[in-house]
Amino acid sequence: MNTWGNNLKLSIFGESHGGGIGIVIDGLPSGISLDIEKISDEMRRRAPGKDNISTSRREEDNVEILSGFFDEKTTGTPLCGIIRNTNTISKHYEKDLIRPGHADFTGFMKYGESHDYRGGGHFSGRITAPLVFAGAIAKQVLSLYNVYVGAHIYRINDVADEKFNPISVSKNDIELITKKDFPVIDDGKTEQMKAKILEAKENLNSVGGIVECAVIGMPVGKGAPFFGSVESRLSSMLFSVPAVKGVQFGAGFDFAGMFGDEANDEFYMEGKDVKTFTNNNAGINGGITNGMPIIMQAVLKPTPSIAQKQRTVDISKMENASIEIHGRHDPCIVHRGAVVIENAVALAILDILLDR
Amino acid sequence: MNTWGNNLKLSIFGESHGGGIGIVIDGLPSGISLDIEKISDEMRRRAPGKDNISTSRREEDNVEILSGFFDEKTTGTPLCGIIRNTNTISKHYEKDLIRPGHADFTGFMKYGESHDYRGGGHFSGRITAPLVFAGAIAKQVLSLYNVYVGAHIYRINDVADEKFNPISVSKNDIELITKKDFPVIDDGKTEQMKAKILEAKENLNSVGGIVECAVIGMPVGKGAPFFGSVESRLSSMLFSVPAVKGVQFGAGFDFAGMFGDEANDEFYMEGKDVKTFTNNNAGINGGITNGMPIIMQAVLKPTPSIAQKQRTVDISKMENASIEIHGRHDPCIVHRGAVVIENAVALAILDILLDR
Amino acid sequence: MNTWGNNLKLSIFGESHGGGIGIVIDGLPSGISLDIEKISDEMRRRAPGKDNISTSRREEDNVEILSGFFDEKTTGTPLCGIIRNTNTISKHYEKDLIRPGHADFTGFMKYGESHDYRGGGHFSGRITAPLVFAGAIAKQVLSLYNVYVGAHIYRINDVADEKFNPISVSKNDIELITKKDFPVIDDGKTEQMKAKILEAKENLNSVGGIVECAVIGMPVGKGAPFFGSVESRLSSMLFSVPAVKGVQFGAGFDFAGMFGDEANDEFYMEGKDVKTFTNNNAGINGGITNGMPIIMQAVLKPTPSIAQKQRTVDISKMENASIEIHGRHDPCIVHRGAVVIENAVALAILDILLDR
Amino acid sequence: MNTWGNNLKLSIFGESHGGGIGIVIDGLPSGISLDIEKISDEMRRRAPGKDNISTSRREEDNVEILSGFFDEKTTGTPLCGIIRNTNTISKHYEKDLIRPGHADFTGFMKYGESHDYRGGGHFSGRITAPLVFAGAIAKQVLSLYNVYVGAHIYRINDVADEKFNPISVSKNDIELITKKDFPVIDDGKTEQMKAKILEAKENLNSVGGIVECAVIGMPVGKGAPFFGSVESRLSSMLFSVPAVKGVQFGAGFDFAGMFGDEANDEFYMEGKDVKTFTNNNAGINGGITNGMPIIMQAVLKPTPSIAQKQRTVDISKMENASIEIHGRHDPCIVHRGAVVIENAVALAILDILLDR
Repeated sequence: MNTWGNNLKLSIFGESHGGGIGIVIDGLPSGISLDIEKISDEMRRRAPGKDNISTSRREEDNVEILSGFFDEKTTGTPLCGIIRNTNTISKHYEKDLIRPGHADFTGFMKYGESHDYRGGGHFSGRITAPLVFAGAIAKQVLSLYNVYVGAHIYRINDVADEKFNPISVSKNDIELITKKDFPVIDDGKTEQMKAKILEAKENLNSVGGIVECAVIGMPVGKGAPFFGSVESRLSSMLFSVPAVKGVQFGAGFDFAGMFGDEANDEFYMEGKDVKTFTNNNAGINGGITNGMPIIMQAVLKPTPSIAQKQRTVDISKMENASIEIHGRHDPCIVHRGAVVIENAVALAILDILLDR
Repeated sequence: MNTWGNNLKLSIFGESHGGGIGIVIDGLPSGISLDIEKISDEMRRRAPGKDNISTSRREEDNVEILSGFFDEKTTGTPLCGIIRNTNTISKHYEKDLIRPGHADFTGFMKYGESHDYRGGGHFSGRITAPLVFAGAIAKQVLSLYNVYVGAHIYRINDVADEKFNPISVSKNDIELITKKDFPVIDDGKTEQMKAKILEAKENLNSVGGIVECAVIGMPVGKGAPFFGSVESRLSSMLFSVPAVKGVQFGAGFDFAGMFGDEANDEFYMEGKDVKTFTNNNAGINGGITNGMPIIMQAVLKPTPSIAQKQRTVDISKMENASIEIHGRHDPCIVHRGAVVIENAVALAILDILLDR
Repeated sequence: MNTWGNNLKLSIFGESHGGGIGIVIDGLPSGISLDIEKISDEMRRRAPGKDNISTSRREEDNVEILSGFFDEKTTGTPLCGIIRNTNTISKHYEKDLIRPGHADFTGFMKYGESHDYRGGGHFSGRITAPLVFAGAIAKQVLSLYNVYVGAHIYRINDVADEKFNPISVSKNDIELITKKDFPVIDDGKTEQMKAKILEAKENLNSVGGIVECAVIGMPVGKGAPFFGSVESRLSSMLFSVPAVKGVQFGAGFDFAGMFGDEANDEFYMEGKDVKTFTNNNAGINGGITNGMPIIMQAVLKPTPSIAQKQRTVDISKMENASIEIHGRHDPCIVHRGAVVIENAVALAILDILLDR
Repeated sequence: MNTWGNNLKLSIFGESHGGGIGIVIDGLPSGISLDIEKISDEMRRRAPGKDNISTSRREEDNVEILSGFFDEKTTGTPLCGIIRNTNTISKHYEKDLIRPGHADFTGFMKYGESHDYRGGGHFSGRITAPLVFAGAIAKQVLSLYNVYVGAHIYRINDVADEKFNPISVSKNDIELITKKDFPVIDDGKTEQMKAKILEAKENLNSVGGIVECAVIGMPVGKGAPFFGSVESRLSSMLFSVPAVKGVQFGAGFDFAGMFGDEANDEFYMEGKDVKTFTNNNAGINGGITNGMPIIMQAVLKPTPSIAQKQRTVDISKMENASIEIHGRHDPCIVHRGAVVIENAVALAILDILLDR
C-alpha cells in the first residue's frame, strides 16, 4: 500500500512518463505559514540536469498545490501537490528486455501486461520528487519546534567524508550542509568524489555511496516501544526510497565489534537536562527519543541503468538476451539521494514528533 | 502503536514483571493445522537459562492459546497466545537510577511516574517471546507454501561465521541451522564465539554481534513499490526487536564500494524460471520479490545490562549518580536474538506473502 | 484522517473554492480496462446545474487521471484523479457568520483562523465529486465480478417511492434505475417529489429525504466479524457523505417492532445455493455476506443553505447575529445524493469484495 | 480485521466456547488511576443470568488484567484484559444445521470446516464482554475530561420510553440511568417492556428494540471531515456490535420529513459559549463536534435464537431441514445491549477525544 504514517497520512502517486506525480499529506497542523520559495529551492536541490554528474533529463519539477493551502497557510485539511511530467522520452524504453537491478521484472510479475514500464513507471526515482516536496513542508513545520534535519554524502565508492559529530552537531552545521550543491562536510573531498562519479560515467558505469542524516532538537519521549519505534518508522520510510539497501542508527553495524561498556551511552546532568556522554544509540533508547541527536546512515546502491552490455531475459519470449541501456541516466544518485533522504527523514520525524 | 501488519494485524502486549505477556494475531488463514510441539520447541530455542552464556532467569515460557484455535487448527479469527510471568525478581530494579543503554529514561519521559520500570517493563527483551510464538505459527503456515526462514549468528565481536550462499541457500541449509543450539554455519567458530561471550561475562561486560537471516521459496511479485516495499516491511519489524540498530539487505552497506556492473544482478533463464547470476539485491527489486533468496543482516548491540560501575543520573533528584547492574543478565543476546529475528522475519514474510 | 479502506486505500482532498479536488485510489487490481465515457456519465449524473431543482452552479467536473492508468487500463499502482474548480464565486461567503447546519463553526474551532471557509471548504458537498469518480471506477471493476450497485430516491419529505424487492432485485432493476435522471422506481412519484422540492425552493426552504441502495451479486463469505463487518465498513463510508445522518440495513429500525420469528431469515436450498426466504438482514449475517442482496437506506438532511433569515453568531465578535444565505444552492440534495451514495457504496463494496 | 481505532488501537479476540476472550487496548494515556470495582460493576451490568428475562447462562465475567496496569494505574503501554470461559455447554450446538439470523452459514463459508461453530464462536454476543471491559476503562478516562456517556432502552417492541432531552441532558440524567438495572427514563414503562419480553419468551419467541445513547461534555472541534467524521467512527463501532442493524444521529431518519428551517440548528451565544437552540444534528456539524450533546440511536434485532421450529439447511448434506434452538438464550438483548452500546460508544468517544 502506498500509504504511510501514524499521525500524518501520506499517499504518493504517479509514474515517470504518465500525466503527473504527486502526494497527498493529511494530518498537517493548520495555520502553518509555508514559504513556497523554500519549497522550490528544495525541489531544485533534488532536480536533475544541473551538471554533468546527473542525468540530462531536465525537469522543472514545479509543484502545484491543489488543496489544503489558503492565504499562504496550511488549512489542516489534506494538502495535495502535483508535478507535471514534461520532457519525457519514452522511446528509450523497451518493454520486454528487463533491466538488471530495476523493477521491470518484478513490476511485470506483480502487475502483469498493463504494468507501466516506461521509465520505470511508478518505480522510478522520479517518484521521490513528491517526497521532497512533502519533506520541504515538514521541515518548515519542524523548524517551528526547533527541530532541524540535514544530510550529507558520507561516502562515494571509496572516498569518505567526515561524519557528523554525534554529540555536538548543531543547527549551524545543518544549515551549512544543506546550502551546498554537493553536500559534504569536508570540502576537500568534493573533487575526489566527483572524479569517482565521472570515472564511472566514462566507463559506462555507475557508483554507489552512503548518505548520513542528522536530526537535532527532537524533544525527549517521542516514538514508542516495539512496532512504533523511531527506528522502525524511520527505516520503513528510508527503505521506501528506491536504491536504499541498508540503514543503520548511531554506531550501527559497528556495535557488532563493541563491548557493553563501549556501547552504552552513560548519562549525566547538563544543567537541567539529562544528556549522554556518547551517542552510539543515535538519540534513541527503547524506540523512544532521548533528546540527543538522531543520526542515521543509508546506503544507496549504484544506479542500475548503465550503458554497458548486460545479460538479461526477454520476458515476452522467455529467453536469454542482452541489453545496453541508453537514455539519460545518473552515473551516481548519492548526491541527489542525500536531498531525498534528508526530506524523507524530515517527513518521518514530523510524524514521530506529532506523537501524543 | 503496538500494532503491525498489512494482511496480518499483530498486537503485542505485556511487561517483564506484570501478570503476563502475549500477542494477538489477526488475519491468519483458517484451517491450518498447527503442531504445538514445534511451537514449544521454538519457544525453548529463545528461552533463557539453558547455559552459562545466557541469563540464569529460567522461564518456562509456556504459551496458552486462548482463541482462534479449535480442533488443532486455526479458525481464521484472532489467535491470542499468552505467557505467564513467573520467576520474577523485582528487587534488583531501582526506579530512579536510569540504566545506560536501556529505556528507563525515555520510558519515564514518555509515560511518566506510572511507567512500569521493573525489568524494563514493556521494553524488556522478554516481550520478544510472544513474537517468537507468533513467528513459530507463521513458519508453519509458510511451510505450506514451501517458504522457509532460517537465521544464524554471523558475527560475535570479531569472530565471523560464513555467510549463507545468496544464490544456493537451500531448505536443507535452513533445517540444519535451525536445529543447532548455537546456530553457526561453520561449527569451527562455535567455541571461539562462546569464548568471546564468556570473556565478556568475566569482565562484567557484554558483546554485540550480527545475525544473518535467509528466506527461500518466496514467489515472485510479492511486496509493493515505495511504502509497501519488502525492505520497508521487514525493517520495520526488525527494528521493533530491542537492541537491533542496523539492517541491511543483500550486499547492503557494501554497495557503497561497488560499481553498477558489479552491483546489478543480471538475469537468465533457468528452465522456465527467471533467475539472477548474483543476488546482491537480496531477491528484491523495486520493493518486490524476484524469486531469489531474501537475505538480510541485523546488528544487535551488546546487552546494556552490565555489572560494571557506570555513570548515570538519578531522575528523582535530577543529579549525577552511578550504577552497577546486578541481577541475571545475558552477557550476549546474539544467539537468542537469532531465534527472535528468524521468527520476526517469518511473521513479516507471511504478511508479505499474503499480499494480493 | 481522510484515508479509508482495508484493501483499497482512498485519500480524498480538496476545497470547494481552492485549486482543485481529487482522490487517490490505491489497491485497484491491475489490468482493468476502464471506460472513460462511463465515468464521465457518472460525473454528469452528480453534477449540478441540470435543472431548476439543483444549484445553478454549473461545474464541468471533468476528471483528469494523473496516474495509475496506462493504455486504457489500470496499472495496479495508485490512481489519482483531479477535478479543477471553476465557476467559483466566493463573494457570497462571509467568514464570520457561521451558517446553521454547516461546518463553519466546527471547522473554525478545529482548524482555527486559517480554515478555508469559502463555500464550506473541505466540508463542501462538492468533495463528493471525487467519491463519485472513484465509485464509477469501482463499479466497472465490480461488474467483472457480476456485482451491481444501484440507488434510488426512496423518499422526499412525505412522498415515498416503492422499495427494492429485497429478495428479487435484479441487474435489470439496477440498470433501469441508474439510467433515470431522477431515479425513482415508481415513475408516478417523480412529479410529486419534484413539486415538493420546488415548493421548498419557493419558500426559500429545503427538503430532506431517504436514499435506498441495493447491491446484488456479492459472493458469500465477504466481510468479517466485529470491526470488519460489512455494516461497519459501509456505514463508515456512508456517514462520510455530508448530510447523511442515519443508516439502516434491511429491516433496520423496523426490527424494533418485530418478533424473532418474523425477523429471522429462514434458509432453504435453491438448486445448489443456500438462499433465505426473507431478507430482513440485508444479505449480512454476523458482519459477513450471505449471498442475498445487500440493501440499505441512508437519510439525507435538508440542505442547510436556505435563504430565510436565521439566527446565528458572529464568531469574530462572539455575539448574536442573523444570516440570510444567498448564492446558488440546492433546495434538495437527495437526487444528487442518490448518485453519491450509489458510488460511495460501490467503493466500499469493492473494498469488501477484495477481502481474502 | 478485528482492529479498530485511530488514536486507540483495539484488538478483540475470543470465541464463546474457547479458552477465553479478551481485548488489547493500545494508546491509553498513562497514569490514569482505574477503579477496578467500577469496571466489575460494568461487567455485571452486562452479565447474563440476573433474572428471568436474560439467558440463564451465568458467567462470572471476571476480567484479569495482564498488562498495561501497574500500581493501580495505566502504564500507557498496551492493556490486555482476559475473561475465562466457564459454564459452557457445547452439546446444544449442532454444526450442520445453520441457525437462521446467526452467522453459522456465513462463518462456515468464510472460514470453512475449521470454523468454531460452538455457541456462535467468535460471532457470539459474548464477545461484547471485552468491549464492555474496555468501555468501562474509557469511561473512567472520559470522566477526567468531564465527558459522560449513558444509554437507555428507548423501545422494546411497541413500548417506547421517553427520549433524552437533546439540549439539556445532564450528568445527573446519565448517572441516574446508568444506575438502573433496567435502564429506562420513564420508570412507568419498565413493567410494560418486561411484560413484552416475557410474552415473547412464553411464545418461544424474542423481541427487538432500540437503544438511545447520549454523550455530554465533548469539547468543540473533535472529529474530522469525511472518513474521520464522528458519525463514521461511532457507526463503525456500533455496527460492530452483533444485532445492530441501524444507527441514527439526532433527528436521524426524521430528517426525511423535515424542511431546512426545521432541521437547521440555529446558533446563539450563551455567555461565552456558542450553543444551538435545537440539536437535530446531535452535536455534530461536518463530522466534527460542536459542543452540544451527541445523541444517537441503535436498533437491535430480536435475538435470533428462538425455540420455535424454523426452516433451515443442513450444510453437510446441502439439503433442506428444520431446527429448534434449545439451550439458554435471551428472549431480548436490548437491556443488555444498552450496556454494551453505552460502553462501545464510550470507547469510540475516547478515540475521538484523543484527536489532535
